[in-house]
Amino acid sequence: MTFEVLILGSNSSIPVHGRHPTAQIVHHDEQYFLVDCGEGTQMRMAAFKVKRSKIQHIFISHLHGDHYFGLIGLLTSYHLLQRQTPLHIYSPPGLEEIINLQFRYSDTRLVFPLHFHVFSGQTMETLYESDTLTISTLPMQHRIPCCGFLFREKKGLKRLKPGVAERYRLPTPMIAQLRQGKNVWWNDIELKSEEVTTEPPPPATYAFFSDTRYDERLAEPIAGIDLLYHEATFLSGLEERAALTHHSTAAQAALLAQKAGVKHLLLGHFGSRYPELEPLLNEAKAIFPHVQLALEGHRYAVRQPAPSLV
Amino acid sequence: MTFEVLILGSNSSIPVHGRHPTAQIVHHDEQYFLVDCGEGTQMRMAAFKVKRSKIQHIFISHLHGDHYFGLIGLLTSYHLLQRQTPLHIYSPPGLEEIINLQFRYSDTRLVFPLHFHVFSGQTMETLYESDTLTISTLPMQHRIPCCGFLFREKKGLKRLKPGVAERYRLPTPMIAQLRQGKNVWWNDIELKSEEVTTEPPPPATYAFFSDTRYDERLAEPIAGIDLLYHEATFLSGLEERAALTHHSTAAQAALLAQKAGVKHLLLGHFGSRYPELEPLLNEAKAIFPHVQLALEGHRYAVRQPAPSLV
Repeated sequence: MTFEVLILGSNSSIPVHGRHPTAQIVHHDEQYFLVDCGEGTQMRMAAFKVKRSKIQHIFISHLHGDHYFGLIGLLTSYHLLQRQTPLHIYSPPGLEEIINLQFRYSDTRLVFPLHFHVFSGQTMETLYESDTLTISTLPMQHRIPCCGFLFREKKGLKRLKPGVAERYRLPTPMIAQLRQGKNVWWNDIELKSEEVTTEPPPPATYAFFSDTRYDERLAEPIAGIDLLYHEATFLSGLEERAALTHHSTAAQAALLAQKAGVKHLLLGHFGSRYPELEPLLNEAKAIFPHVQLALEGHRYAVRQPAPSLV
Repeated sequence: MTFEVLILGSNSSIPVHGRHPTAQIVHHDEQYFLVDCGEGTQMRMAAFKVKRSKIQHIFISHLHGDHYFGLIGLLTSYHLLQRQTPLHIYSPPGLEEIINLQFRYSDTRLVFPLHFHVFSGQTMETLYESDTLTISTLPMQHRIPCCGFLFREKKGLKRLKPGVAERYRLPTPMIAQLRQGKNVWWNDIELKSEEVTTEPPPPATYAFFSDTRYDERLAEPIAGIDLLYHEATFLSGLEERAALTHHSTAAQAALLAQKAGVKHLLLGHFGSRYPELEPLLNEAKAIFPHVQLALEGHRYAVRQPAPSLV
């Protein structure tokens, strides 16, 4: 089952050095979730050949512009392209008012159903749930209400061993029961689930951390997850400025990854003052070796090969 | 004196075919005026090496998103970059409310003075005046309040003939009076302005037409001007759709240029349905030969060489 993150933009605040404000696509199975939507996100989607029509859920971490100024343009394009399917937007309070005000002045009456869902940012809340995935908020420590998002796969069904279905000519409902762990009778034979199935791959979990200052309490809800995207707005030496602006250094990102025992770390939300990103990477790597830079246009598997401690 | 237009975006509605929504810089003498500000304008400025700090006046034709969704991002960047100088924004009613609402939710208190100036869109109004230029609204025929803008140079001062200043050792105030057409006495000699000066080049005028349906009454205020930027959202055959959506065909743009007797026509606001622009150009050229496509990143002199009727 596909579970990966496509980076559309991984810069902070101002678009510079050819980098763009925050936006990413979390692709799980058949679903494409848009997480944050900085200015120009719809152009980035076009550049990376993302089919925007596939997106049904958009998660906005907070109402600083570099995380949502591209939303109104994307919604307008959906409208002009005669989108039919409903769209769900999850955000802190205020976004619906901002969007609707602009549609009022442009005299736009949307041709598709748009649903706003508000989260407080104070506690973990489940925003989305399907048979295979839940998406929850992760309250951040930022200047205004702000959440990250936790994409947690559910444990999948067991897998039938090769040849079993054919040998017993099993009908679909029987297969389903075996995969759920139930034993079944078929043609006077009892088939035991534990004998004819194998365990599914362990469920994977991805956390998108939005803007936040360092706070080790943030480690607890992401303990042991597969992949953590964490902001790295500053290099060490600017901890005071980071704390003042409610942002983190690359070293702090690595420290949190270490405390949480995550498997891999992805650095993003790069400070505009850094034309080169290697120093951010190196600083984090010294603390937490399984770290990569979130480069625009690149896809990162959530379920990465087990870390080999080099 | 420089007087030219740099195209940042010349597409309509949706960013496609590598084209971007409306934005352009009118550069007159030492001033850089931004006209409309579609999504991604600040990135387009960076791509074309426009120094955004030089802009002190922004003109927004109307509140359809492809003409202003980039404004909030640009203002935010000015704020983050610690802009000091005041900025003036001219628009129909509503923009201040839209901008301020977003700054309220992001808890942004601008570090530079921002002044909003509202025009009704019903009559021609002078928005800006300097010693060398006036900028006025041009009411359009669109679905919501919408104006184009007329950039009219004032007649310049006469020019002193070469060598005159040196021969008579004229002090600066005397030169100024002669250039204003006044005769002066200097060292017991009367210098006659008409004898020691030549006429300045004739003042040039540029009109930016925003979204509008065809209406020949729009020709009158732009009679005989040097350069007209006119929308060309459709090709002929779609006149009904153009009228319905309050837009124009390329042929209608040419017809208006012809009726107004402008010297040159620049086609823009290209319909997203047209990956190739040549058909729009050819359609206009059949009616009005002095026409060009407004290509992004290109600069167009307002005072172009006199048309040679080929």
